[in-house]
Formats: sequence, C-alpha cells, structure tokens
Amino acid sequence: MTPTITAFAQSPDRGQGLARDMRVRWALEEVGQPYHTRLVSFDEMKRPAHLALHPFRQIPTYEEGDLALFESGAIVLHIAGRHAGLLPEEANARARAIMWIFAALNTMEPPIVEHEQARYHEHDKPWHRARLPLLEKRIHGRLEQLSNRLGDADWLDGAFSAGDLLMVTVLRRLEGSGMLDAFPNLCAYIARGKARPAYQRAFDAQRAVFTASNG
Amino acid sequence: MTPTITAFAQSPDRGQGLARDMRVRWALEEVGQPYHTRLVSFDEMKRPAHLALHPFRQIPTYEEGDLALFESGAIVLHIAGRHAGLLPEEANARARAIMWIFAALNTMEPPIVEHEQARYHEHDKPWHRARLPLLEKRIHGRLEQLSNRLGDADWLDGAFSAGDLLMVTVLRRLEGSGMLDAFPNLCAYIARGKARPAYQRAFDAQRAVFTASNG
Repeated sequence: MTPTITAFAQSPDRGQGLARDMRVRWALEEVGQPYHTRLVSFDEMKRPAHLALHPFRQIPTYEEGDLALFESGAIVLHIAGRHAGLLPEEANARARAIMWIFAALNTMEPPIVEHEQARYHEHDKPWHRARLPLLEKRIHGRLEQLSNRLGDADWLDGAFSAGDLLMVTVLRRLEGSGMLDAFPNLCAYIARGKARPAYQRAFDAQRAVFTASNG
Repeated sequence: MTPTITAFAQSPDRGQGLARDMRVRWALEEVGQPYHTRLVSFDEMKRPAHLALHPFRQIPTYEEGDLALFESGAIVLHIAGRHAGLLPEEANARARAIMWIFAALNTMEPPIVEHEQARYHEHDKPWHRARLPLLEKRIHGRLEQLSNRLGDADWLDGAFSAGDLLMVTVLRRLEGSGMLDAFPNLCAYIARGKARPAYQRAFDAQRAVFTASNG
C-alpha cells in the first residue's frame, strides 16, 4: 500500500524545504518507500475534510490504508518502525535514537520557532528589536549544549537515525541567521545530513512543487 | 531491574506536580513499575555527571541497567513500549496514541511554555502586558482545536493512553490561568486524568519531596 502525504500547494518558503513535509519525504526516501503527495491550499486546510485528518489545520498528514496520522515526528517514527534504516535494531540504541527525535522537536525546535514567529508576527511591534537578543540567547544556549554533546561525532548516537533526520531539519531553520556560525561541528553535521542521497531526492521533490506552481 | 529517575531537589512549583518528572512517575504508576528517585539540586544539574545523563541540564532522566534516557516524552514512550497499559495492542491504534504524544508535546505545549516563560523572564519588561494577548490568543486557538477534536469523548482516541497522559500534564500547566474556562470538555478531560489512582500516587510521591524539604 503506497502511503499518501499532504504538503502545501503554495510553498511559504519558496521551495527551501523548511515545511514539515520535508521530514516525512526524507524518511520515506531513506527507507525506499514510494509515496503519493496531495497538495492542499490554505483554504482547503480549514475545511472539514482536512480537519478530520489534522485537527490543528497543518501539514503533513500521512494516510496508509485505514491509518491516518498527523505530527511529523509521529509520522517519521511510524515509518522508522515499519522499515529498516532509520532506527537501530538493538533495544537500548533504539530507545536513544527515539530520544533524539524528542530532543529535536521538544528541546531544540521550540525556541527556534518562537524566534521565527516573532519575526513573522511581531516585526512591526515597538518591542521587536529589543526582544530579539533574548530569543537569540535562548537558541544559542541550546546550540551550545547540543554542540558539546555532538563533539566530533558524525551523528548523535552511532549510525545515522531518525533522530538525526529530525535534528538536521530543525537546525536547518537557522541557516542564514548567523546563529550557527559559532558551532562548526553543527554546521558540518547539517551538511552531512544534506549530502545524503535520500535528503537530496526529498528536497528535489518538494522543490518541484514550488517550481511547477511558479514556472 | 528497578529504574531510577531524577527530579528537582527543590520543587520550583512547590509540589504542584508541574515538573516533568510527574509525567514519568505517572506512567510508571500506570504500569505498576516501582522506581527509585534521585533528587538533584540546580547546582548538581550543571555538573559533568548530570550533563552526561542530560546534555540540556534538565530533569527527568531515566536509568535502567545500561540504558540512560532524557526527554520526558521519550521516557514515557519507552515505558509504554515495555509494559502493557499505556498503548493499544492494535498497530494502527498504537500509532495514533503515539501521535497524540507528539501532539501534546509539539503542538500544544510550546505556546503554553512560551506564555510561562514570558511571565518568568519578561514580566519586568515594558512590553510584557502588551504582548500577553498575543500569547493567549495562540493558546486559545490550540485549545479550541483540541476541544473540537475531543468532543464528548472521554479520551483522545479510544481507551486512556500515553497520549492522554502527556496531554493532561500539558493542559494542567494552564490551571489557574482562566484560559481553560471556555472549554468545559477539556476541564472534564483533565479532571478524568487526575482522578486516576496512578495519577494520584504519582502526585503524592512528587508532593512528598516538597513537603519533606519544607517540613
């Protein structure tokens, strides 16, 4: 059964691969699972058919036979549980790889998203410039802790796993901000992720949606 | 092998059970797994021994033989995978229960924590009062979507699961804020969670730490 995912019909990041369908595409490419993509407009995301799939009106969703999922972390973990290649077989190593999924999404991503949201929703507020250093300090602290843990390893815990996949997509949100410059090992880590053939196939697939709608 | 978790030696919430060890204690109580607790001070959390367990200097951690985990979501999921009682057996229902773990921690919790952090770290800033409505609106939107999905069901998807456990602990952070008042079904949902005997045992255990250090 070929799964179907949803993605934005109009890419808000102009095909940079920062939307959360990228994570799911990458996971599917890593395990060699073909998939269908259904594009949804912002209008369609508010309609009952999409709300039945995703109560929080977002993308991606994942449908496979009778199963329907939302939450990119849950979808990646589901794919990793069904196919070899994204989680170690040994039980303890597997639990640690799953731990890094949660660390990426619960510890690293929230201050990064908070910083993005401030730029989108509060850029015209009188306090915006004064608040930015607070937000950047919070992100810097997390990056420093992550950089210390990673050290000179290639991946967070042994071989590449779903935890690395999600961590790389989270850190990519900081590209161009300058905040990664102080951490060469994290920059190299992101580059290793992006160099994976599965990443590149996933990136090209999401990029093609943007190109087609602006061709 | 009896696992050992860490918790705050000095409860920042004065024993209200909002620290993240509560989630792990509750999960362990639901499955009937005894555990040891090691209390750590804020000073100890910065030291190498704790950083080796938790690179982001937080609690809880979970140690069981050779396995060491951090991230409350990962720990609860690990416990739920090892014991019956927190995840359905049927594969699709199990994937959906795990999806609700991610929804609690990635979709519901971030705006709630952002609101808390504003109160702790920005309450003396000139913009604090002007920003609060923005933060509350973001939370209200998420509560409304969650309330619509829950409807008049007892739990988010069939029987009580680890997803409900985490969602109840996340929503509890809003108790006393008034923000839950508009959603009677969410208030009843929280009350159902808190009425579970395992919740009550876990609550009493974390409360006893506060009582002992202030007795």
